[in-house]
Amino acid sequence: MPDIVPLPPGSTIGILGGGQLGRMLALAAARLGLRSHVCDPDPGAPARQVTSLSTIADWGDASALAVFARSVDVVTYEFENVPAAVIDAIEPHAPVRPGRRALAVSQDRLAEKDFLSGLGLATAPYVPVEDPVSLAAAIARTGLPAILKTRRLGYDGKGQVRISDAGAASGALSALAGAPAILEGFVRFDREISVIAARSPDGSFAAYDPGENVHRDGILHTTTLPARIDSAAAAGAVAIARRITDALDYAGVIGVELFVTRSGLVVNEIAPRVHNSGHWTEAACLIDQFEQHIRAVAGWPLGPTDRHSDAVMTNLIGDEVATWPSVNNAALHLYGKAETRPGRKMGHMTRISPRQK
Amino acid sequence: MPDIVPLPPGSTIGILGGGQLGRMLALAAARLGLRSHVCDPDPGAPARQVTSLSTIADWGDASALAVFARSVDVVTYEFENVPAAVIDAIEPHAPVRPGRRALAVSQDRLAEKDFLSGLGLATAPYVPVEDPVSLAAAIARTGLPAILKTRRLGYDGKGQVRISDAGAASGALSALAGAPAILEGFVRFDREISVIAARSPDGSFAAYDPGENVHRDGILHTTTLPARIDSAAAAGAVAIARRITDALDYAGVIGVELFVTRSGLVVNEIAPRVHNSGHWTEAACLIDQFEQHIRAVAGWPLGPTDRHSDAVMTNLIGDEVATWPSVNNAALHLYGKAETRPGRKMGHMTRISPRQK
Repeated sequence: MPDIVPLPPGSTIGILGGGQLGRMLALAAARLGLRSHVCDPDPGAPARQVTSLSTIADWGDASALAVFARSVDVVTYEFENVPAAVIDAIEPHAPVRPGRRALAVSQDRLAEKDFLSGLGLATAPYVPVEDPVSLAAAIARTGLPAILKTRRLGYDGKGQVRISDAGAASGALSALAGAPAILEGFVRFDREISVIAARSPDGSFAAYDPGENVHRDGILHTTTLPARIDSAAAAGAVAIARRITDALDYAGVIGVELFVTRSGLVVNEIAPRVHNSGHWTEAACLIDQFEQHIRAVAGWPLGPTDRHSDAVMTNLIGDEVATWPSVNNAALHLYGKAETRPGRKMGHMTRISPRQK
Repeated sequence: MPDIVPLPPGSTIGILGGGQLGRMLALAAARLGLRSHVCDPDPGAPARQVTSLSTIADWGDASALAVFARSVDVVTYEFENVPAAVIDAIEPHAPVRPGRRALAVSQDRLAEKDFLSGLGLATAPYVPVEDPVSLAAAIARTGLPAILKTRRLGYDGKGQVRISDAGAASGALSALAGAPAILEGFVRFDREISVIAARSPDGSFAAYDPGENVHRDGILHTTTLPARIDSAAAAGAVAIARRITDALDYAGVIGVELFVTRSGLVVNEIAPRVHNSGHWTEAACLIDQFEQHIRAVAGWPLGPTDRHSDAVMTNLIGDEVATWPSVNNAALHLYGKAETRPGRKMGHMTRISPRQK
C-alpha cells in the first residue's frame, strides 16, 4: 500500500463540477479547514457561492485546466462524465481521485457491465447494440420488455427507452439517434438499495448502512434507512462495494446501486462520486458522505460510518422546492439554484427518528 | 407580533465578523440556499474562504458599511462588541438582528448585570468600580476573593484580574489601565451550564438542552450533554433564557451561561450570538445552532432542538489543533486559521454516544 501523507488543513481541494454535489463537497471540506476551488464552465454554478476560489473554464480548455490544477493540492469531481481529456490536462499537475479507471468504467455502460461481470458480480442481462440487426439479436437474448440505453451520458432516466414489444424496437433505436447503446433485460426485484462506501488511497474501507431507494419518473424520490433487508443481504451489499473499490484501486466515496432479487443481489450501476442516495448521511451519521469523500481524497483517515438514527431522505424536484417554508422536523438542504425547472434537483430533506434496530 | 415574511432562498445574509463563528454561520446559510456576505476588517478572516461575497472594511468606515448593507437582505454578527456606530451605518439599509438592544446590554458588564437584576434574575454580586476609593468600597460589599473585570471588551478571560487579598487591589486596578470596571463577588457553584436558545422575530422560542461547561485557563474546554442537573434545573435554565430573549425582543440565537448553586441558578453572562458552548449541536442535533440562528434572523420557522445523541464537545486551543490526524470517532471542525497561536481557538471536536436519558 502506498504511504499517503494527509493533506494538512489549509490545503486546497480542486472540484470539477459546481452543481449541488460539488457544493456539498466544498461545505464539507470547509469543516475540515480545507479550501475548495470549484471549476465549472457555468458562471452561475451554485458551488461557486460557497467558496472564494473558483474557475470558469470549458472542459476543452486544457490550458485553463492546467492553471486550475497547479493551484490546488488534489482534484476530485462531482460527476462521472468528466472527459478523459480533462484528466489528461490535470494529472501532470495534481493527483485526480477517485481516478481515471473509475471514470472510464462508469462513463460507459458496456464497460461498466463488463467490469462488474468480470468480478463475478451479477448484473442485468445486457447486450451491446449498434444497429437494427444487433438490436434484434439482443432482444432475442434478453427477451422483452427490455431497456435500450445509450452507452454514454445517461443519468436520471435520460438516454433510455423502454421496449415493450418487438414492433417498438426500431423507434427506440432512432430515439437514441444512432448513439452506441446496450440493451438491458429486466430484472425482477423486490427492492432497490444502495451502498455508499469509501476507500482510502491506503486501501482502508468503510461503508454506510445500505439505504432503500424509491424512484419516481426515473429520478430518486426517497432513500430510507434501514432498508428492509436482512443482515446477510446488507453484509453482501457492502462486500460487493468493497470488491468494486478494491478492483478499481479506488480513492473516495462510491455509490453502488443494487437490486434485491429472490436469487440475490444484482448490481444496477456504480457512481464514482458522492451519490444522491447518500444524502441521508448528513442528518443521521456523525461524518457524512461528503466529508468522507474529502477525507479519502485528501488522504485523511476515514471517519466512522455508524448511523445514529433511522432516516428518510426525500428529494425536492422542480416545484417541490416551493414547500420549503413548511418543512418542519426535517433537515432541509437547498442547493442555491437560481432557476427552478421540471425534473431539476433543487434540494432535499431528511427526517430522522430513533434507531429501531 | 410583527408579521415576518421569511427571506426566500437566494437571499443574502450579511455577517459582521469573519472568524470561526461567522464562518460556521455562512456554512449553515448555504445549506438553506441562502448566500452569505462576510464583512470584516481583516483580509485574512477565515469566513471569507467559504463565500464568494466578502467586504474588507474597518468598523469606522461608515460608507463602506453602507455599501455592504445595501447589498444584503439582513445583517447579523458573530461578536457582541460591534460598535454602535456600525449599527448606525447599517440600519438605514438593512435590518440588524439580534439587534441594537441586545448589543448594548451585552457590551457592558454593568449594563448586563443591571438588565439581568432588573428581570429579577440572580447574578454574582457586583459593584461598579472607577478608582481606588470605589474599589475599596466594592470589596467591602462583595468580600474577597473577587474578580475585577473591565466593563467592556472582555472575552475568554481577558480583561479580568482576580483579587485574593486587599493588598492586591491597587495592582489589579492598574492592570486594567483605568478602564471602567466592575467588581464581581465569587459565586460558589457546583457546576457551570449554558443554554443555547433561539427566538424568532415573531416571538416563537426554542432551546437546546443545557450543556455542562468546563473551562481551562479562562477558555471553554469542554461542553457535555446532558449536564448533570435535574429536570427542574434544566427547565429553569430554559425559562431564564426565554425571559431574557423576550425582554430584549430578541431575534437569533443567544448563549446564556449559568452557575448551578445550592440556592438556585445564577446567570453568569449572556452572548447575543451563536456560542462556543453550542458547538455540540452540530453533531448531536438535526438542526444546529448556526442554522437555527440563520433561520431566526431570516424570519424562517425555527427548527427542532431535540438532541438525538449525548455529546462531548472539546475545543482545540492553540497547538492542540496539531492532534487533528489522530481524531477518530469524533466530528472534527477546523476553522481555517492560517496561524496557530497560544490560546487561539483553532477548532473543536465532538464525540457522540447514544442518549442515556
